[in-house]
Amino acid sequence: MEQVDQIEMRGKMALALDLIEGCSEFAALIPEVRTNLVYALPNAETREDVLGVEGRITVVNGLPHAAGKPRFGASSHMARLLVEFRKTDSSVRAAINFTSNPALARWLEKYCRSKGWVFSVIDRRNEPEEIKDTEGASMPWKVQAAIKAAGGAIPKIFYETGAVGKEPVSVLIGHDPIDVSEEICEIARRYSGRS
Amino acid sequence: MEQVDQIEMRGKMALALDLIEGCSEFAALIPEVRTNLVYALPNAETREDVLGVEGRITVVNGLPHAAGKPRFGASSHMARLLVEFRKTDSSVRAAINFTSNPALARWLEKYCRSKGWVFSVIDRRNEPEEIKDTEGASMPWKVQAAIKAAGGAIPKIFYETGAVGKEPVSVLIGHDPIDVSEEICEIARRYSGRS
Amino acid sequence: MEQVDQIEMRGKMALALDLIEGCSEFAALIPEVRTNLVYALPNAETREDVLGVEGRITVVNGLPHAAGKPRFGASSHMARLLVEFRKTDSSVRAAINFTSNPALARWLEKYCRSKGWVFSVIDRRNEPEEIKDTEGASMPWKVQAAIKAAGGAIPKIFYETGAVGKEPVSVLIGHDPIDVSEEICEIARRYSGRS
Amino acid sequence: MEQVDQIEMRGKMALALDLIEGCSEFAALIPEVRTNLVYALPNAETREDVLGVEGRITVVNGLPHAAGKPRFGASSHMARLLVEFRKTDSSVRAAINFTSNPALARWLEKYCRSKGWVFSVIDRRNEPEEIKDTEGASMPWKVQAAIKAAGGAIPKIFYETGAVGKEPVSVLIGHDPIDVSEEICEIARRYSGRS
Repeated sequence: MEQVDQIEMRGKMALALDLIEGCSEFAALIPEVRTNLVYALPNAETREDVLGVEGRITVVNGLPHAAGKPRFGASSHMARLLVEFRKTDSSVRAAINFTSNPALARWLEKYCRSKGWVFSVIDRRNEPEEIKDTEGASMPWKVQAAIKAAGGAIPKIFYETGAVGKEPVSVLIGHDPIDVSEEICEIARRYSGRS
Repeated sequence: MEQVDQIEMRGKMALALDLIEGCSEFAALIPEVRTNLVYALPNAETREDVLGVEGRITVVNGLPHAAGKPRFGASSHMARLLVEFRKTDSSVRAAINFTSNPALARWLEKYCRSKGWVFSVIDRRNEPEEIKDTEGASMPWKVQAAIKAAGGAIPKIFYETGAVGKEPVSVLIGHDPIDVSEEICEIARRYSGRS
Repeated sequence: MEQVDQIEMRGKMALALDLIEGCSEFAALIPEVRTNLVYALPNAETREDVLGVEGRITVVNGLPHAAGKPRFGASSHMARLLVEFRKTDSSVRAAINFTSNPALARWLEKYCRSKGWVFSVIDRRNEPEEIKDTEGASMPWKVQAAIKAAGGAIPKIFYETGAVGKEPVSVLIGHDPIDVSEEICEIARRYSGRS
Repeated sequence: MEQVDQIEMRGKMALALDLIEGCSEFAALIPEVRTNLVYALPNAETREDVLGVEGRITVVNGLPHAAGKPRFGASSHMARLLVEFRKTDSSVRAAINFTSNPALARWLEKYCRSKGWVFSVIDRRNEPEEIKDTEGASMPWKVQAAIKAAGGAIPKIFYETGAVGKEPVSVLIGHDPIDVSEEICEIARRYSGRS
């Protein structure tokens, strides 16, 4: 790993986490499984090539709070999701997960339309049984389902419907963790003030 | 709230969290939704009467890590679960949640038998639809299901089967957070070294 | 060490630190060497019998912030000071240090008079050279100087004049860390609002 | 402030703090006033242009521990020191302070000789009374004294002799916080293992 990449990546993560930790409205969008913000090396191929927040982002005193520091390999789920999207478009380098529920999903769909963003859904009821039962097979299926439901495009935001034992979450993806953080904080502020 | 209760409760929580944060084996038992350790006032009736860890207990550098301090009202799910069990037996004052999977469930069942502890299961497939759809109705149903499955006794340990959108978790309950922490750390160490 | 002592002591320290961390005005009284809050076992004889804050209390985002948890043996200077005072009066169990300067010293002297508290000064210019040069000899000399300057009484608050290489600090002593924290926060609020 | 500077600076500070927090030997070199690591913008002229660690670097569980995040304006003393050196050589952008005592000073002098580094001393006994008494006048005097004692060069390492009310500290200066951290950790390791 080049030190120049590490410097830029740790610097962007620090500024991105400042934004998230300063956005009280985002606390309401942190799911039960907690949020992670992930950032992939330009040539990332495995979760070890992806920077994530140790211990995830939780809520303390009503504010989002990164439990630990950013570290390569700190995320499993979100890092593997990002790696999978990168097989289709390697310019995708950052992502954040947040809560999902029917009211938020409807709001996000409209919001994405107003921004010209691709919005997508992974309907886990369509997941074949043999995939559910095969270790590591769900992630490729989910990513392809999200891309297929978006008509072949990489979505900007998508959510999963719930499955047995799995909390449904939404995900916002992008190229840079600072942009991703600005976008999710804008969403959190607007959603909290909706009428 | 009497200051004498607060002193004793914060003191016991501090010592209990020392035990948990020092038990590296417990990191493997922290579920996706993270762990909370809760401790109820002697006459607790609502979640505001229950001490929980702000931001829950997550994993940082391979060790369990309390994201914030203990605070009354910090827990929702685990606090409401404890309050519900207390309607049957108000000597129940502390609880901790941890991961659940079939291998662990089988191991726990044997372990409980060896300790003479009541073990129970909440099979969420039996949850009536009208209860799932009524805000706040699930918790009483779950607690009664766990007690019923244990032949009318308060279980020491129980787990839920997964439901749509819900991660299955196990719960250990007791009278005091120090005892609960010693018990869960003993389980974590033994389960990690099982052969 | 009795567990019952540990529970009560950790509980009182937790509540005391809540008070201090919530008192923004105290941030202005934290000295360069940082603050420690110490609490001695009833029969404490060495620094290992004294609870102190790991990493001391510093200032983060304008608020006092305990860098680590309370731990026996975590404090050196403040713990040894407390142990020395306890040779004269073993009911003394808690203490906190804070900044010192001439304006504050004059204000404290008046404040102590209004409260009926014993106020004292350690003039380090009077410290004999042979004591300065003997490892561990300064603390007994300082404590005896503070008691002597207070006419034989244990002072409630005292300050040291500066010495070469030593930042001058003030100290407030008492029987219980919650009382000590309430007292120092009251001082911080009043001193910040003085006219 | 350009975002590109902020990204690079926060990234380098993050990596530098990883090094320091991972160097247990450095804990022994943290002075009573605690350590700060500072990093100036390329054109820094005031302390607000200098990144420092909120709450300084203290010791928790035997390891150096940054109490808060890096923030512009977080340091007063070390930031002003750096700004003053930059008036002579604006390529100086990073510095860290650490403990000082006669044994360490002798060791550092030899170590600097072996590395070809300029070593210097500020003898505060030479500080004119009128400077001590003028707010803000000490720092320019100290920096000029360090440069003068080094024959006109910017020292790599210098220490101050103690003054009344002032803990004597050593300072290592450089161009980049990662280099500075590597250098101070190397010193900490070698000094701890000296024979």
